[in-house]
Amino acid sequence: MTESTINALVSPEGSLEILSNFEVNRLKDRSEGGLYRLFRQCALAVLNTGVETDDCKTLMEAHADFDVRLVPQPRGLKLELVNAPAHAFVDGQMLRAIREHLFSVLRDIIYSYSIPQSAVGLRRDDPEGITNLIFHILRNARVLQAGRHPDLVVCWGGHSINEREYQYSKEVGHQLGLRGLSICTGCGPGAMKGPMKGATIGHAKQRVKNGRYIGLTEPGIIGAEAPNPIVNELVIMPDIEKRLEAFVRTGHGVIVFPGGVGTAEEILYLLGILLHPDNADLPFPVVFTGQQENAEYFEMIDQFIRNALGDEAASKYEIIIDDPDKVARTMKQGMKDVETFRRAMQDAYYFNWMLKIDPVFQMPFEPTHKSMRALALHRDQPVHLIAANLRKAFSGIVAGNVKESGIRHVQAKGPFEISGDPELLAPLEAMLKEFVAQDRMKLPGSGAYEPSYRIISEATPATP
Amino acid sequence: MTESTINALVSPEGSLEILSNFEVNRLKDRSEGGLYRLFRQCALAVLNTGVETDDCKTLMEAHADFDVRLVPQPRGLKLELVNAPAHAFVDGQMLRAIREHLFSVLRDIIYSYSIPQSAVGLRRDDPEGITNLIFHILRNARVLQAGRHPDLVVCWGGHSINEREYQYSKEVGHQLGLRGLSICTGCGPGAMKGPMKGATIGHAKQRVKNGRYIGLTEPGIIGAEAPNPIVNELVIMPDIEKRLEAFVRTGHGVIVFPGGVGTAEEILYLLGILLHPDNADLPFPVVFTGQQENAEYFEMIDQFIRNALGDEAASKYEIIIDDPDKVARTMKQGMKDVETFRRAMQDAYYFNWMLKIDPVFQMPFEPTHKSMRALALHRDQPVHLIAANLRKAFSGIVAGNVKESGIRHVQAKGPFEISGDPELLAPLEAMLKEFVAQDRMKLPGSGAYEPSYRIISEATPATP
Amino acid sequence: MTESTINALVSPEGSLEILSNFEVNRLKDRSEGGLYRLFRQCALAVLNTGVETDDCKTLMEAHADFDVRLVPQPRGLKLELVNAPAHAFVDGQMLRAIREHLFSVLRDIIYSYSIPQSAVGLRRDDPEGITNLIFHILRNARVLQAGRHPDLVVCWGGHSINEREYQYSKEVGHQLGLRGLSICTGCGPGAMKGPMKGATIGHAKQRVKNGRYIGLTEPGIIGAEAPNPIVNELVIMPDIEKRLEAFVRTGHGVIVFPGGVGTAEEILYLLGILLHPDNADLPFPVVFTGQQENAEYFEMIDQFIRNALGDEAASKYEIIIDDPDKVARTMKQGMKDVETFRRAMQDAYYFNWMLKIDPVFQMPFEPTHKSMRALALHRDQPVHLIAANLRKAFSGIVAGNVKESGIRHVQAKGPFEISGDPELLAPLEAMLKEFVAQDRMKLPGSGAYEPSYRIISEATPATP
Amino acid sequence: MTESTINALVSPEGSLEILSNFEVNRLKDRSEGGLYRLFRQCALAVLNTGVETDDCKTLMEAHADFDVRLVPQPRGLKLELVNAPAHAFVDGQMLRAIREHLFSVLRDIIYSYSIPQSAVGLRRDDPEGITNLIFHILRNARVLQAGRHPDLVVCWGGHSINEREYQYSKEVGHQLGLRGLSICTGCGPGAMKGPMKGATIGHAKQRVKNGRYIGLTEPGIIGAEAPNPIVNELVIMPDIEKRLEAFVRTGHGVIVFPGGVGTAEEILYLLGILLHPDNADLPFPVVFTGQQENAEYFEMIDQFIRNALGDEAASKYEIIIDDPDKVARTMKQGMKDVETFRRAMQDAYYFNWMLKIDPVFQMPFEPTHKSMRALALHRDQPVHLIAANLRKAFSGIVAGNVKESGIRHVQAKGPFEISGDPELLAPLEAMLKEFVAQDRMKLPGSGAYEPSYRIISEATPATP
Repeated sequence: MTESTINALVSPEGSLEILSNFEVNRLKDRSEGGLYRLFRQCALAVLNTGVETDDCKTLMEAHADFDVRLVPQPRGLKLELVNAPAHAFVDGQMLRAIREHLFSVLRDIIYSYSIPQSAVGLRRDDPEGITNLIFHILRNARVLQAGRHPDLVVCWGGHSINEREYQYSKEVGHQLGLRGLSICTGCGPGAMKGPMKGATIGHAKQRVKNGRYIGLTEPGIIGAEAPNPIVNELVIMPDIEKRLEAFVRTGHGVIVFPGGVGTAEEILYLLGILLHPDNADLPFPVVFTGQQENAEYFEMIDQFIRNALGDEAASKYEIIIDDPDKVARTMKQGMKDVETFRRAMQDAYYFNWMLKIDPVFQMPFEPTHKSMRALALHRDQPVHLIAANLRKAFSGIVAGNVKESGIRHVQAKGPFEISGDPELLAPLEAMLKEFVAQDRMKLPGSGAYEPSYRIISEATPATP
Repeated sequence: MTESTINALVSPEGSLEILSNFEVNRLKDRSEGGLYRLFRQCALAVLNTGVETDDCKTLMEAHADFDVRLVPQPRGLKLELVNAPAHAFVDGQMLRAIREHLFSVLRDIIYSYSIPQSAVGLRRDDPEGITNLIFHILRNARVLQAGRHPDLVVCWGGHSINEREYQYSKEVGHQLGLRGLSICTGCGPGAMKGPMKGATIGHAKQRVKNGRYIGLTEPGIIGAEAPNPIVNELVIMPDIEKRLEAFVRTGHGVIVFPGGVGTAEEILYLLGILLHPDNADLPFPVVFTGQQENAEYFEMIDQFIRNALGDEAASKYEIIIDDPDKVARTMKQGMKDVETFRRAMQDAYYFNWMLKIDPVFQMPFEPTHKSMRALALHRDQPVHLIAANLRKAFSGIVAGNVKESGIRHVQAKGPFEISGDPELLAPLEAMLKEFVAQDRMKLPGSGAYEPSYRIISEATPATP
Repeated sequence: MTESTINALVSPEGSLEILSNFEVNRLKDRSEGGLYRLFRQCALAVLNTGVETDDCKTLMEAHADFDVRLVPQPRGLKLELVNAPAHAFVDGQMLRAIREHLFSVLRDIIYSYSIPQSAVGLRRDDPEGITNLIFHILRNARVLQAGRHPDLVVCWGGHSINEREYQYSKEVGHQLGLRGLSICTGCGPGAMKGPMKGATIGHAKQRVKNGRYIGLTEPGIIGAEAPNPIVNELVIMPDIEKRLEAFVRTGHGVIVFPGGVGTAEEILYLLGILLHPDNADLPFPVVFTGQQENAEYFEMIDQFIRNALGDEAASKYEIIIDDPDKVARTMKQGMKDVETFRRAMQDAYYFNWMLKIDPVFQMPFEPTHKSMRALALHRDQPVHLIAANLRKAFSGIVAGNVKESGIRHVQAKGPFEISGDPELLAPLEAMLKEFVAQDRMKLPGSGAYEPSYRIISEATPATP
Repeated sequence: MTESTINALVSPEGSLEILSNFEVNRLKDRSEGGLYRLFRQCALAVLNTGVETDDCKTLMEAHADFDVRLVPQPRGLKLELVNAPAHAFVDGQMLRAIREHLFSVLRDIIYSYSIPQSAVGLRRDDPEGITNLIFHILRNARVLQAGRHPDLVVCWGGHSINEREYQYSKEVGHQLGLRGLSICTGCGPGAMKGPMKGATIGHAKQRVKNGRYIGLTEPGIIGAEAPNPIVNELVIMPDIEKRLEAFVRTGHGVIVFPGGVGTAEEILYLLGILLHPDNADLPFPVVFTGQQENAEYFEMIDQFIRNALGDEAASKYEIIIDDPDKVARTMKQGMKDVETFRRAMQDAYYFNWMLKIDPVFQMPFEPTHKSMRALALHRDQPVHLIAANLRKAFSGIVAGNVKESGIRHVQAKGPFEISGDPELLAPLEAMLKEFVAQDRMKLPGSGAYEPSYRIISEATPATP
């Protein structure tokens, strides 16, 4: 990549961030414990918006000479950027959205890393502590707004989708926007951008001035899925599990578009939680949707779920084919049910405290050859644990595909091995093959897909 | 048309309109001099947004049972709608944009018709009076904003264009929006909607909250070109000439996309004015643009202009093919030139008082068989008069195509006859044929185009 | 007066006014029909705020070298002031409030005088036309706000009151402000300033950001009662009668503090209207209030009213002594009654269309020796006509005291003669004497009061 | 006290506070380590606004049945109040200002006590840590605003002053407000309320919508100096030393009105800091001001300072007698000097990072009989230490007068003994006597002042 770069001094228009000397020093600290390295990496990812790549490692290497420095100023803070990718600028001026994203990165890194791991009430090895921590990070990012009614639709789906799928996701967003609903996604391209663009037009037509386009990401994924500039609230969660919990605690419903392993991970996570007995009566609208040509795709997903988790799991979602209007009406109605329920329960609209999340879904899963091989993929366990372990399997494949550490592992030792009960794994393997065939694993143009996994069916499940 | 309809009571959210008893009574007045008929007709046109039709007469006939009534309320005014087209609603709620448009119609009709024709300083047979009147109507509509820098790009072009042309106009709008520029159009579909949609996304990315999407229309055309819902400032000017003057006095530059006779009328009007000696030094950026496949089209237009008005006329515009970025940069630079000039001259940014408009461009032209036949279409007159008369010829063809009275004339007496010097008329005829061939005369689906004109070349020009 | 002056160029921050060439030329026109003279006079009055004077003539003479000029600018309009009174400035910068007042003067003079006297629906010799005209002037001044609930308390009372009376009016304003009510006065000092100042503090404590401090004045009185800088909405009505009508159509209730002949004029006007049979059921809260030491004063007023207009008139108001809290609670309750009534009647909250005003209260009264002598001051007429004629008598005395033309008349021909039935005039004379004794006729410091009237009791009333 | 009370459920209009479950539980925790007791006490103090008392102990005892409970709600948090003092309400509705203050108390208590004492970078036994901690508390309270120019004037002076002194402080505030300056005080009555009230009127005249009336208090003093309702930004700092540091780091200049021992403490603190060599060139405008009758008072203060700290100390302030206009102009100029300096140094406008504060001024001083007796009050030490120790002596007297723990100590063991060098203590004793004579020790009506101290002059200074 010999792309042109720009040096610039940018100010945090629209941001309220001011830092203490202590925080400034931490961000400048290039030592191991310091935050400089992490900040630089996320800043670069943010600047890389619009460039379709999904390989963090390549990105970092291509911009080895990129640098970012804090410049304290009488009226706030500025950032000095050296060798920033030129496409983040219009006529030499940095896009306002990207400026905001830079300062969001700053805000979240400073905040997340300033809470001691052992802080009372926010301990990271304690389920309640984790949930409180997520609340605090989101509150600090001003994502939790006390005055609003439930209106936040989480949209999941692939970042690598075809043009027709993209247009469909846009039209769904348009219909959501016309009904005053807001969008929350993982903040990359594809099915994460389409609904936001559509909602922007819908909001314009309804004169919705405070439409929300929330992007939730984490340092490991941001490089592969740079926030699109429509995102007007960007949050960097500490890791993938906290990001997933943030989705289900702030969002009031979920729409799933066609996607690949990342989307599958999200579906398993969601169903695993919703199947918890404590959540049985909790309204949580979930819709799987696509155009006519995706009908088969969703049938496959549906079959996979019914096989792995049973028919009750399938009762948690509705599949709607080729009807954006109906999708939006279903979500609108779902929002009302959520509102009625929370009002009755005196639970907050802005944070789903009542949702029970089993600790198994909260603890970070670090995919390595060992941990992947050890996943208990068999049916002889409670259904939510099957979901949890399948979720981890997908998470590992995502890491092997696009995350820096995952790629390194696979490059060093070959594909992750996933073993278990053939009844579970055969459908899994079939589905993964289908993802590959449909180009849902990686962005087109990045060459033929080299699987980061290998399925090993065995009668006896691996011992955890 | 057996389309479904809805009855509704709508309030003017976002509008500031409150009326005196005197005004309410005028709007209710169904007699000849009253405003009810006009208001009903424009209200229906506004509600018809999104339906692609360009035949006012059909529209009115299809909704013979539509009615609109004023309902005074303690906190303002409401409108009761009977048998309103259902597509103006989302889940039974009227689209906010359309509600605003309804109240804009109310505002402008009341205001324009409350100024006595003979009011001192605003007489309609006096050039200065007309310009003041236009200022007052625009001011009353809050279009003239004292605090803004020049940023208003007028986009002209066909309402009937193909998908690729539409996408191109959107991308141009996107680039304009990224540069913080606002859009003003005739407010219908096609090239009048694309740039607004694109600019909406551009503004979202730059967090431009006060982006303007101004639609200027008039009662005769609104039925054929219903305001699209992106339009957030709608103004109903009294007639076509005042609408054209409003474009050039409030806009700071013009982009012309491919179009048909309406676009040709606008081009002739603009060049006729810019060629006035008093305007020689006035900066006024004009760009003709389209994709590669439109290159030939613009060559034809260019040739037509050079033949009819000479090469100086061609120096007033720049043709840019397939380069939205350059179009936007050219306009941005043009805005700066306008600003520099106005500041030096102490002329207002919000209204181009210095632009000299010859009265021949201000006086309403009523196309009839007689007035069309009498047009002086020869070269033996000052160049701005050639432009003025050609402008009228195109105006008549537009009327014959889509305006209620024009259609009636043509239905009654056959096509308008246009006669004159073959040197002028031969290229005109060729161009019109090309418009027909390219489907630029009417919207597709409205059947084969039946010309509303007939060209008669004669050596001796008709006496006016 | 050899007070220091300042030259300045001021911009209309906070004002939205932009003018057409036509309007600019009218304001510059120094000929008889032009508006320059009137604008200069009102501008000077506005600049004179804070200087306690009540003699317009002296004011104009003292600032013979004052001048004001319009300076068109690219981003709006500026005013160039020559020899402006220095006390309108703080450290060389004009007080923002006064800048706003200057542009309000500009706005209202331009607007009122641009409506032809014969405009359909707004004729000044037609009762309905006058009411519509008042509506249009107030609407143009943005005083009529559709969204608000009834909350506007008109405060009347003397501009020349003692320190304790002033503190009491402030405390009443404080209590009104604590209840979220807004204030409307004649906009001078004394009882017109105290309630506004008190309400400002009350609003601050309740965080009321959109508190209204409306001042209604007219060219004849503005010089004597310069708007105090708390006034954040200033309106210049064309004459005293339209100003009075503006009070009762926009205000939702009235509080009367101790005052002199001006206050008496207002009381007579108000009661004359409320006594009209059509207004019998219309809620309109009226409170007369003062501290303990004013109890006697209000007893006198009450007696005068009962004698002149009968006991029914006295049922239209409540007298509350030394209890600001109760005054405010009474008004708050009154606002609720007004709201309930208007909602039931579907009448606007922002303009009291239903209030019936007899034309005798609308037509301008020009006090001259002849017209004053001709007033029918006897009991042999309907009670609302007694009120109307007494109102005119007071109006004439006010003019003789402080208005330019009135002062000239009295200087030329001696005091106005007021003749009529002794039963009416004896109490009147006694009350006027009391006003003189209590220093309520003119501001202290302007020398001993020289009566501008002479009472002539005669058994036979003068023929009108 | 048998004052009436009210039970109410109040919502945090205007507040953005939302709490995590963890925080809610801490506030509910009535155990020793929990925050309930502290929150209840501060809440009661806030509700007690307007009641002139300066005895925290009495206040608490008088409202033993007062209670406050958190009530989570779908759209935020409410507070349920039981037996709240009735004077915090208007017609049964809690004053909006007090509602805001309640939620400020909540916010600051939660925040300050959620930072572990040992948090890296914010340790309370480390000077830099303390300053960072103060920054974090103020930032969390949104007091540090990046966009503003220096405009914050700290006003110090007695809460017990006479009516003329009060009017004077109001007029100074008025003049500051007219110049767009904002006010920061200790947030009680007297000289802490007057300038805010005056500035409110000044801001209204200049249409300053974002005027700031910041009150900085701490749990020990809030009961004696309840925030007045003009205060629109209330911050509860953890202790007196952090409150003092907050004053000098956020304020851009200081005005001192006549006061008693609290004011003397503040003066000594300020001068002690400004005399540090590192601060020699730092602009920091300080004005002592009062009316003519206070001239002698300030002469006494000036003499005391010159005697104790030398003439250089006296060069740090200017004494202005009876000239509010000059005071305001001096401050306005001082703000400009501060701005110029900070811009040159690239130091923040919103936090005075460069001001060097010796740790001796940061560490909390707990006044007990032992610590008071041990104060090193002699001249044989650096001048900033003399200031520091005198500051502590005054602080102890304040505690003995109005703080709960101080009162207890004195009730138990008699007055605090203050011993030291007669050259220092004789003038001190004289000044204290003068404070007593002028009723500056306690609010009038609380009975004859019983000194909480006893001065013991000895040639040999006590060993620290």
